[in-house]
Amino acid sequence: MIATGMELIDDAEMRSTARLLRTDADPTEVAARVAWSVLVEPGDGVAGALLQSLGAVEALRCAFGDMSLMPPGVAPPRALAEALDRWRPRASTRAVRDAMRSAHSVGARVLLPGDALWPDGLGDLDVHQPVLLWARGDADVLAAGTAAAIVGARAATGYGENVAAELSGDLASGGTLIVSGGAYGIDGAAHRAALGVGGATAAFLAGGVDRAYPIGHQQLFDRIRQSGVVLSEVPCGSAPTKWRFLARNRLIAAATLATVVVEAGWRSGTLNTAGHASSLARPLGAVPGPITSAASAGCHRLLREYDAVCITSARDVRELWGESDATVAPSATPDHDRTRLFDAMSTRSARETADIARRSGLSVERVRSLLGLVALDGLVAQRDDGWVRIE
Amino acid sequence: MIATGMELIDDAEMRSTARLLRTDADPTEVAARVAWSVLVEPGDGVAGALLQSLGAVEALRCAFGDMSLMPPGVAPPRALAEALDRWRPRASTRAVRDAMRSAHSVGARVLLPGDALWPDGLGDLDVHQPVLLWARGDADVLAAGTAAAIVGARAATGYGENVAAELSGDLASGGTLIVSGGAYGIDGAAHRAALGVGGATAAFLAGGVDRAYPIGHQQLFDRIRQSGVVLSEVPCGSAPTKWRFLARNRLIAAATLATVVVEAGWRSGTLNTAGHASSLARPLGAVPGPITSAASAGCHRLLREYDAVCITSARDVRELWGESDATVAPSATPDHDRTRLFDAMSTRSARETADIARRSGLSVERVRSLLGLVALDGLVAQRDDGWVRIE
Repeated sequence: MIATGMELIDDAEMRSTARLLRTDADPTEVAARVAWSVLVEPGDGVAGALLQSLGAVEALRCAFGDMSLMPPGVAPPRALAEALDRWRPRASTRAVRDAMRSAHSVGARVLLPGDALWPDGLGDLDVHQPVLLWARGDADVLAAGTAAAIVGARAATGYGENVAAELSGDLASGGTLIVSGGAYGIDGAAHRAALGVGGATAAFLAGGVDRAYPIGHQQLFDRIRQSGVVLSEVPCGSAPTKWRFLARNRLIAAATLATVVVEAGWRSGTLNTAGHASSLARPLGAVPGPITSAASAGCHRLLREYDAVCITSARDVRELWGESDATVAPSATPDHDRTRLFDAMSTRSARETADIARRSGLSVERVRSLLGLVALDGLVAQRDDGWVRIE
Repeated sequence: MIATGMELIDDAEMRSTARLLRTDADPTEVAARVAWSVLVEPGDGVAGALLQSLGAVEALRCAFGDMSLMPPGVAPPRALAEALDRWRPRASTRAVRDAMRSAHSVGARVLLPGDALWPDGLGDLDVHQPVLLWARGDADVLAAGTAAAIVGARAATGYGENVAAELSGDLASGGTLIVSGGAYGIDGAAHRAALGVGGATAAFLAGGVDRAYPIGHQQLFDRIRQSGVVLSEVPCGSAPTKWRFLARNRLIAAATLATVVVEAGWRSGTLNTAGHASSLARPLGAVPGPITSAASAGCHRLLREYDAVCITSARDVRELWGESDATVAPSATPDHDRTRLFDAMSTRSARETADIARRSGLSVERVRSLLGLVALDGLVAQRDDGWVRIE
């Protein structure tokens, strides 16, 4: 049993490892954030409020020792007592040291809120913002001006994987960071296509960044680390539990400008990511598919029930965040009288003005004036025996 | 040149034919409506205003003779003069008589606004309401409580035709009248499926009801007339011009509770029907398809730009007019703590409460109380060495 929060990070090896994990940050601050990453499950709102209010170091000190530091209003006493009961079973100096060691051994770095590379959008999670991110690979890709989440079912169809690849490749080659969850199916297709065009991609994992999950994506994660980044808010060694998958989905939605669901079953976990996007007021897109395909049922549900935008191209995705491609010519307003004039004419038989008037239901005068106008465009011609239409 | 409007219908044969076309209506009124059907192209707003204000007989008398009958405000003088110039080339007693004769020879009847079978919704077209409808077949099907328009591209795919048939068959067997345009592709599939389940269907044609257009649907129209109805607002002998197709589309939209587009190209004429539905405040549905299919591009456009509802089943169509099927069970709210508890347990190794607390990030007390609760459901069991999860 520890007596004060500082014991959790009061360790010489820990401080030196913290320096390796982050050369440009205060090692005590790094160690304290790591401790919080060990203590809490993702999205712990009481921890979030405490960290927002006191910072990681003081929050440790307060939570595990000097409660007189607690600012008023951070959490109701009961919620705080319950939170301490949650955190205490994990309050172990060894666990914190192990988290650092494991991360260092796989070359992971630590990203902290406020860092230049910290995804801005995560701030919208407020007290549910992660306490840190563990990152393997090239975290610089997070500096991309635009980021899109392309997510979907593991049990994807060839159609879905092709569409995911098409959208992702197009967006990535335009400089957009492709964010996804590293799963089989749509996620994998999205990551791969981004890599394929030399673009940037980031995978948010539900478990630690030291373990490949799913194991069959070991090579994909290796490739992502070459020209992208693998991220997680839980320490190395953490299993990808169901809860952590759900919590991870909020990061994908928050770290991007828009979330696009390519394929999802009726009760797919992907809809959870979509729900996060909606509650964060992020634009949500869904790719339609055949209504006979169970793999598209969740997308159609998003279109019907969640007011998702129908996505058919990378251009549609860019429009989600207000980027519009070259101006589209306004659709020509049909000129009804012209349509009726042409309907009443023939390309073979010449017709007199009165005949054209009768057939079209237009007045003789209107037919005359229209014929004059469209003759200028070369669409009709006058012969001895009347007017013909030119094809 | 006729001197008064009444000359147009002042003909003994005409009156007797009018009696045959409608046994239960004033033959002069029928003849006057037929005359207007001959005089105007569909949707003529000046004629519509005049008929609304004076009735068909007086409107004829006023337009072609005694202008002192004209009520103030029906149409600006200039618009009226232009309208007369449009109508005059067609003002022929023979044309009116021919329209009646042709209709009678093919067994067509005349439906008039105000008739019990007159589709209520057409009234929403206001002055653009048709002056009458020519009907071949069993007009009684128009008395169905609900009517849905199922329309789409001529160049439909197998997918589109199957979906159209599926929706139409399902709706028709539930008593909904299936309204469409009699064209190849989606329209044909919708009509056929309705007939196939012994349901009711109505085809609105752009040309006269005496001619099958397209000619390849001759047999289909024959079948529709057996247990449904073929309708048109233009007289027998009229060609299905482009203008009349556009005008016909407004009838399909107005005569139904909702319009569903099953497949349509990016610039499909079907979008015109959808536009009419929207401007009449009729619910509009679109069936999605693969984004790689050009035949679905127009549907996706309706979903994106026209706020169409995504349709995946007949049930979705019925919801368009507010009919809802059996109540859907609300999706179970996930119990986050339970998820975390189960995540932390194993089906093989028994774990102690403290271990489960550490793994789940829940307090020992919360774990204890949750274990007690879920044990009641038989989802976990206590052994000598701790708790296991029961699968």
